Amino acid sequence: MSAERQLVMIPGPTNVDPSVLRALARPTTSHVSPSFVATFRGALENLKKVMKTSGDVFVIAGSGTLAMEMAVSNVVEPDDKVLVVSNGYFGDRFADVVSRFTDGAEKLSFEWGKAADPHKIKEKLEAGKHKAVIVVHVDTSTGVANDICEIARVVKEQGALFILDTVCSLGGMDIRVDEWGIDICLTGSQKALAVPPGLAILSASKEALDARIKRKAKVPSYYMDFENWLPVMRDPSKYFATPPVNMIYGFAQSLEMILNEGLEKRFARHIAIARAMRSALGEIGLGIVAEENRRADTMTAAYYPSGVEDEAFRGSMARHGIVVAGGLGQLRGKIFRVGHMGNVSPNDLVATIGAIEASLSQLGYSFEVGAGAGAALESLGKSYSAG
Amino acid sequence: MSAERQLVMIPGPTNVDPSVLRALARPTTSHVSPSFVATFRGALENLKKVMKTSGDVFVIAGSGTLAMEMAVSNVVEPDDKVLVVSNGYFGDRFADVVSRFTDGAEKLSFEWGKAADPHKIKEKLEAGKHKAVIVVHVDTSTGVANDICEIARVVKEQGALFILDTVCSLGGMDIRVDEWGIDICLTGSQKALAVPPGLAILSASKEALDARIKRKAKVPSYYMDFENWLPVMRDPSKYFATPPVNMIYGFAQSLEMILNEGLEKRFARHIAIARAMRSALGEIGLGIVAEENRRADTMTAAYYPSGVEDEAFRGSMARHGIVVAGGLGQLRGKIFRVGHMGNVSPNDLVATIGAIEASLSQLGYSFEVGAGAGAALESLGKSYSAG
Repeated sequence: MSAERQLVMIPGPTNVDPSVLRALARPTTSHVSPSFVATFRGALENLKKVMKTSGDVFVIAGSGTLAMEMAVSNVVEPDDKVLVVSNGYFGDRFADVVSRFTDGAEKLSFEWGKAADPHKIKEKLEAGKHKAVIVVHVDTSTGVANDICEIARVVKEQGALFILDTVCSLGGMDIRVDEWGIDICLTGSQKALAVPPGLAILSASKEALDARIKRKAKVPSYYMDFENWLPVMRDPSKYFATPPVNMIYGFAQSLEMILNEGLEKRFARHIAIARAMRSALGEIGLGIVAEENRRADTMTAAYYPSGVEDEAFRGSMARHGIVVAGGLGQLRGKIFRVGHMGNVSPNDLVATIGAIEASLSQLGYSFEVGAGAGAALESLGKSYSAG
Repeated sequence: MSAERQLVMIPGPTNVDPSVLRALARPTTSHVSPSFVATFRGALENLKKVMKTSGDVFVIAGSGTLAMEMAVSNVVEPDDKVLVVSNGYFGDRFADVVSRFTDGAEKLSFEWGKAADPHKIKEKLEAGKHKAVIVVHVDTSTGVANDICEIARVVKEQGALFILDTVCSLGGMDIRVDEWGIDICLTGSQKALAVPPGLAILSASKEALDARIKRKAKVPSYYMDFENWLPVMRDPSKYFATPPVNMIYGFAQSLEMILNEGLEKRFARHIAIARAMRSALGEIGLGIVAEENRRADTMTAAYYPSGVEDEAFRGSMARHGIVVAGGLGQLRGKIFRVGHMGNVSPNDLVATIGAIEASLSQLGYSFEVGAGAGAALESLGKSYSAG
């Protein structure tokens, strides 16, 4: 199968719609031309709708990792205490990022696959004065979805800034920035927003911007300083650094698609597909990494049955035209991860389940081939008839 | 005229070739897929040819401003003395960037429009122990081309690291990273490399990497740390942060075009077009901002004749389908700037001169309309018959 016809079912980058690809390929215009400025302005307004915020947003050239760092570097000063909640690879990475900016990083770890416990977070916060709390909503390494609404309540109660990483959820799961009190919500373009990688995306509450303004130490970065970008993000006809024109065209087109689908319908599609995925894996007999009731709608990580090797499995999947991801960190070689977010369709899911079944069977795992696809179809049928 | 048919003649972003736009629109693949990894690897190798280096290179999601900051943040420690040579807006901005990382930033300013004087740089270096010297090759605000070969000699003689900003030159003018001893050469994608904005591009010599390794203070950034990227840049099948897949496809295609044209032929094209531009402006009677013999081949900034207003002129140019830029900083309102780099052709130049003549005439400036185009054609004819 041609590489360009493969289904990209990793937890990012995800499949990009042809209309977004065509938008990416529009002739590059001046970054201050009226047509580009109007597109950029519209995209920023639409992003606020997806984030459910009336606060400020930032969209700049960079990866999700830059967005993580930008969240920290603006509000954290060298001696600030910061609580980093981690239950996966990207939570751990966030602690590494924070350690570049303060010696007061404190990591609260939970077992990979388990959700973060809001009570434990509360205990930690009561024991010390934290400037900020950082949580990864869905850690791409496990597919656990932390209980953001409850964690936000605990964090705000203690008066700390709440920094939330929604790299693997925004655009596929409901994130209510203003209602929940998320001070900085950050993501990348290449996951449930279904744009190629290359954009760092953040929101900032009034409290976050105040923390930036009131800080004593200078922000140890020129490119990441909220203050430098704020005038541009409020009026894209202004200049700070050249925006990634073509990426913004693609981003704007994807946001149009997201809002045309409707956020609630989009979240329901993600829920239906995630449920079908889990039914299928259960029928096939694979264990899911994330604990029950706290599983993400955007991706699923599953353990290999004994005897099935990671490389052989993913190689077989690729020959079936489906790209899935292996494990990260302590789960390397033990699990595979499937992204089902952004533009994912029931057809994509059924094809993926089919390839998983064929591959496992070829690799000697014994089960009733077809049962997974059957379970997925039944689950999808229920979800869509109920809707 | 349709906005997409306008000629983008600003000093970046520049006109992007349709084949690069098509490459940008390729289906987004996994960042660790064999096909993407091969493309990325090839692009990095081709970039080394354009930079004339056998050292390490870095290509990451970000703007040219991020590349400026990444150069500084890796090698400059909090108390290091750094000499920032400035003869324009971006030299001044570089001093601002440096001030985030050390209190030892020292700015050596030259009049805008004049080249930096290597003797003055030498004097400064002899008077103090500088860790690094930063020079902007072509400051986009004026179009002066500093004498890099000579400045590099002076800097290396004093044992300082030489950081060179080639945002407005690499890919259009000869930059010999290894031969001249440039420790960090940085640029963005959207100028003479003729890719849309969105990539930060750097080279690093062994001395620059050593300075990173031997530093005592931690690099105050996770995303910008050379050490984090080095394994990926040496072997793109490795992961640090998700690379901007589609931008890399476009970048790879543009580098293929650059090397297919041939570097020497490409530089000759830039020289011929720049010369024709200057002949035309001279004939029209406009003063050029950059001093003679130190004018860039990639762009030209010219003073308005008295009575011609910036906004009216650029508005008229846009109605003729040609986008040119206004002045920055102290030159705002006084000059216009024309980029002639990357994919620029003699046709683009003649059309631009035509629109300049028509606009100036309509705005009441008195001169022999057509003389500029005639001079440009004569100059181009000489350059190409000589070649």
